[in-house]
This record gives sequence, C-alpha cells and structure tokens, in this order.
Amino acid sequence: MSSFHFTIDAECPDSWARAGTISTPHGTILTPIFMPVGTQATVKSVSPEELRAAGAQIILANTYHLMLRPGSSLVAEFGGLHSFMHWDGPILTDSGGFQVWSLGHLRKLNEDGVTFKSHLDGSYHILTPERVMEIEAELGSDIILPLDICAPYPCSPLEARKAMENTHRWEERALIAKERHRPEQTLFGIVQGAFEPELRRESARVIGNMPFPGLSIGGLSVGEPKAQMWEMLRHVTPELPRDKPRHLLGVGSPEDMVMGVGLGMDMFDCVLPTRVARHGGLFTATGRVNIKSSRFRTVRGPIEEGCDCYTCRNYSAGYVHHLIRAEEQLYYRLGTIHNVHFMLRLAAQLRAAIQAGTYTQFRDEFLARYVPASE
Amino acid sequence: MSSFHFTIDAECPDSWARAGTISTPHGTILTPIFMPVGTQATVKSVSPEELRAAGAQIILANTYHLMLRPGSSLVAEFGGLHSFMHWDGPILTDSGGFQVWSLGHLRKLNEDGVTFKSHLDGSYHILTPERVMEIEAELGSDIILPLDICAPYPCSPLEARKAMENTHRWEERALIAKERHRPEQTLFGIVQGAFEPELRRESARVIGNMPFPGLSIGGLSVGEPKAQMWEMLRHVTPELPRDKPRHLLGVGSPEDMVMGVGLGMDMFDCVLPTRVARHGGLFTATGRVNIKSSRFRTVRGPIEEGCDCYTCRNYSAGYVHHLIRAEEQLYYRLGTIHNVHFMLRLAAQLRAAIQAGTYTQFRDEFLARYVPASE
Ligand SMILES: [Zn+2]
Ligand SMILES: [Zn+2]
Repeated sequence: MSSFHFTIDAECPDSWARAGTISTPHGTILTPIFMPVGTQATVKSVSPEELRAAGAQIILANTYHLMLRPGSSLVAEFGGLHSFMHWDGPILTDSGGFQVWSLGHLRKLNEDGVTFKSHLDGSYHILTPERVMEIEAELGSDIILPLDICAPYPCSPLEARKAMENTHRWEERALIAKERHRPEQTLFGIVQGAFEPELRRESARVIGNMPFPGLSIGGLSVGEPKAQMWEMLRHVTPELPRDKPRHLLGVGSPEDMVMGVGLGMDMFDCVLPTRVARHGGLFTATGRVNIKSSRFRTVRGPIEEGCDCYTCRNYSAGYVHHLIRAEEQLYYRLGTIHNVHFMLRLAAQLRAAIQAGTYTQFRDEFLARYVPASE
Repeated sequence: MSSFHFTIDAECPDSWARAGTISTPHGTILTPIFMPVGTQATVKSVSPEELRAAGAQIILANTYHLMLRPGSSLVAEFGGLHSFMHWDGPILTDSGGFQVWSLGHLRKLNEDGVTFKSHLDGSYHILTPERVMEIEAELGSDIILPLDICAPYPCSPLEARKAMENTHRWEERALIAKERHRPEQTLFGIVQGAFEPELRRESARVIGNMPFPGLSIGGLSVGEPKAQMWEMLRHVTPELPRDKPRHLLGVGSPEDMVMGVGLGMDMFDCVLPTRVARHGGLFTATGRVNIKSSRFRTVRGPIEEGCDCYTCRNYSAGYVHHLIRAEEQLYYRLGTIHNVHFMLRLAAQLRAAIQAGTYTQFRDEFLARYVPASE
C-alpha cells in the first residue's frame, strides 16, 4: 500500500495559503515546496548530494525524455530512477503529455492516445493512459501523473472543452490502469480547462472528486499573461478538496511561487531557476542579476550577502564571474546551486510565514522588493 | 622565509625511483605525485572538495591563461589564487613560456623576453623573466617556474643550444628578480636542451647547480616518440642533485607516470587524464575504455570494479553512459573525478611499491596489463 499522506499544518487567515506535510515512501516533504527539475534523470550540473545540501526535498523527472533515453525498461533493470540516478528522496514524474504536446506536427491525437515522433531519432512512439502508467511504474517514481492534453494557447472554447473532456476520460483510464502496477506509487490527477473559467471550475470539481490523493493544475504558464494564470487559479482552488496537495505544473519562478502559494498551491516545479542560472541569471532578494556583467569582476563578497548556499559560502562573486566568462563548467554548477538554494529557502520562508500568520505581509514585501526579469 | 623542504623517504634499489615528502606553505605532498591541471583557476568540471576527496595534494595552474584572464593583479586583490579559487592546498604555476611558445607566429623573441598577442582578444603582452616573477608573486602560488624557451620539435642542434643558453640566462635573471617578491614562494629551475643528449646533460648540470630548491624538466612530450623522451631522461637524471624534487613538465598519462618514476621523476602534471575523461575516455587497470560505447548501456556495476572514487561508489557505468549520451554536464564531473582518482591512486601505489622495494615489479606488471590508447 502507498504510504502517501498529506497533513495541513497551518492555514493563512487572509489567503488560501497553507503549510503542509507530505509523506512518501522516500521521505517527507514540507510544503510549500519547490521541486528542481531533473529532465534526463539529473538536475543539470548538480549532484544529488548538492541538491540535498541546497534544501531539495523532492525532484521532478520527465517521463517523455526518459522513455526515449535511456528507456523506462532499462531504468527498471537498474532498480528504478532512485537507484539509477543516486537520489534517495521523493521523485515526481510528469506524464510526458506536455512535451508531446509541444512537438506540434510531430504528434497525432486520437481517443486512444497519442502517436509521436521522437525528437532524438525520429522513431515513432504511442502513448496511451495505460502505457504511461506502465512507463511510470518502470521508472518507480513516488508521485506519478496521468497522460493529459494541454490545449494550445490561445484556443477556442470548443477546443478547450474537447481537450478537457478527453483528458478526464484518460484520467479515469489511468486510475484503472494504475491498479495493475505498483501500489507504493501515488497517482495525482491533472486539472485542465485552458483559460475558460467555467471549464476550469468543472475540471477542478470532476478531478477533485476522483480518487486521486493529490492534484496537479496543468495547462497554465503556456504563453498567457500572468494575470490570466492567476485568474484561473482563483476559479480552480475553491473547487478543490482541501485535504489533497496541489501542484502547479511547470510554474516556479520566485515571484510566481510567492503568488501561487496565496492562491492555494503547495508544490511548484519549473526549469526556470536552473535554466537562467546556466545563462548567468542569479536570484537575489531584489531580483535577478546577471553574473556575466562586468560590475561583478572585482566583487570579493558573495553573489548575495547572507546567502548560505555552498557557492556563496565558498566563492566570491568575482570568481563566479571569472568562471562564466572563461566558460568553465564549474560555473554552471555554482550558479545552479545558488538558484536552487534560493528557491528552497524562499519555500521555507513562505512556510514559516504561513505558520506565523504573516504570509500576506511576506508576499507583499517580497513582491515590492523583488524585480522580476522579463523572460 | 620559505617553508619548502624535500625529504627522500625511500629509494628503489633497481631503478632511479624514489619516494619523498615535499613541505610547502599550504601543506605536504607525498611523492611520486600527479598534479591535476587547473588552467583557468579551476580543474575543469570538479570542485576543490572533490579534488581533495579524489586524493589531490597539489594542483597546477597556468600563468599564461591567468595573466590574460582575469589578470594576475586582480587575483592578487582577491588574496591570491588559493583564496580566489577556494583551494587551500599547494599550487604550482608554470611560467607561461610553453603556451607562448605554442602561439607560433603570434610571438616574437628577443634577449630581453618575448612579445605575444593574446589568443583571447589580440592584445599585445610582453613577458620577461622579471615580469613572470612579478605575475607569479601576484598569483601567490607555492611553487613557481621561471620563463623558459621550449625549442620546437624537431630543431637543429644549433637552435637547441641557443634556446637552452637563452633559457639559462633567463633563469639567472629570474633568481635575482624573485628576491624582490614573496619569500614563501619556491622557484624551481627548468632543464631544457631539446633532444640533444649533450645539451640535456649540460642543462641538468648548470640548472642543478643553481640555487633552485626543485627542478622541472621541460621541452619533452612535444611530439617526439616516447622512446626519445625516456632517452633524454636517462641523460638528465644522473646529472641532477639527488636532494631536489624533480618535476616532469606536461607529462602524466598513467603509463608515462609509471615509467617516469623509474627514471627519477617525482612530480607529474598533464591535462590528459582530465581532457580524455571529458571525451569519454576513462582509465581502468587494463587500459582506457570509452564510456560512450554501447557496451556500457546495461552495466549495473561501476566503471571499474574496486575503484573507490565518488563516481564508482555511487553510480553505475550504465548511468554514467546515459549521462554522456544525453550530454549532461554531470557526466564531465563524474568522468573527471574517476580519472583524477585513478592517477592519484596510481601515484600512491607507486609510492608504496618504492617503499616496499618492489617498484620495478609493479612497473612491469602495470605496463604488461595496461594498454595505452593511441593519442
Ligand atoms: Zn548563494
Ligand atoms: Zn572510479
């Protein structure tokens, strides 16, 4: 049986924010939480020990990428993802749906599933709700997601409804298919509905009432203005059961996590913190700086005063600047560690604020101070 | 005053191999030793803590690269190389001569020094024996080398003699110039003489008798057949003072270190172990393997059975294979750690064999088992 369990430890009186504890077979997660993304069974440029030291409690891996390379059956032969990649904490795998959707003309949808051409070698693959459960069972992650359809942005209300209803049928099939596999895995439901408030509410009700122990909100952050994303959550959250953890799929910049928590979200994942780090974009309390800038050349202090990440404890901003200018690989690691640590410290601060009843004040102060970069 | 000190702990009865201890202001080095190369103030893709864990006792950095970027005066502002790069063990810096020599038409030699054009931005720079002492004082390394002239290969006996004599004059100037700088630094002499046995013997005598506390053998491994390199050492070593550590500049493949020890060399540096690692070439007791090869795809055991490096203790060869196939940065680190650890374990094994009086047996068995790759 699954040891999955979710407890709410505190709730904000002035918003929908909550602090919780998720139990999984590979350990406990304190929410709100940021989940670093390890697309190909590695969070780019950092080791599992470094993730731990940066405060990571759970990581995400991508089913689409892993099914193509090295293949989920090979991962199973290695004892599953945890053993394969040397990470003994909780892992969440997505369903591959989003990546397949991004393939555009390379994929073809029908009621049974989706056919697509690999971006690696052009080979053909079929994903069905049942096949995805099989793949994720082979990967052996703690939290798994069902195959869903992410409607394009923008799309017509009719198209949005068709995608949502198809997703709902696939999720019912996933629930049944999952029974054949590993009981220690926990299948989250995915809420869709594009940018139609009515559909979002309907999807939240339908999926919220299915026997999923947790819920992911999908189909957001796909190109729409930020305000529209938050508006959707204002429709979704009130329809969701209180006692299930809520995962905002693919969203996780500092400012988005701070906002999303107030709209009732518990779990966040996003490649942004690690991706921008690799290009020199490092987070500080006042916003993102570019460490490539010549103003860091002579800085003997750390990237951010007061940051206790491995990078800031041991290296000057000037040295980190030197590494990226010299295109040295150690840079990518040091930058990534700082940003991952920043996100996890921020998640811990959000949790503490919720527990202290001061979340809205924390949010307002953070957003007033933090200048987000335009993507 | 310098705390530099060299003691011979054991000598091989059947060869010129010796085991020694070098004391420096930043710690002790047990010889024979392999020195990982950190060209741009970082050993590519690994952290100082990982170097330590892999057994590194001293690292090398390149004066030429660091004088151009970030500049030696900037490094001095950061408190020197140790503090700049977060490595608190001994550091050896070369003189930049070899790199300048490799620039070909971009450099111009006269009696005073050498003028060259930066490979980075085309700016002009002048290196003289005095300027190199100043730069290395700013870098703050423990062991420094004087500006020398590496004769091209092949070259005429006359050209070889001119280059050697010029180098000798520059080394005298370096000794004088060094007096103006940091007494805690130790200046090694460099033996040249191209591939002329007479010149090699003469250079070893001349430089061996100057007040250098240690000696580097330069101008070898520049394209000549291996046998010719070893022949030169057979001429050089008998002329060298017994009580000074001997550094074979730029040489350090597994098989070359094993051979070089028997010809009286104590210290080795080479980019080969780290460079080939980044391309998939990993050392094992029977030779170099390419981890990219599909035969590693399903290997659940480590890269090398019995290896206790971080990589082999925690990751399967199959996972390391996956990482390099997926072009994931973590690969470069894991591969480099294994090869650096291999070199340092080999150095420790050589030392133990010398102390046990079994070096020649160890050498012969190693060379019979280890199949070197053709470069
Ligand atoms: Zn930091
Ligand atoms: Zn190893």
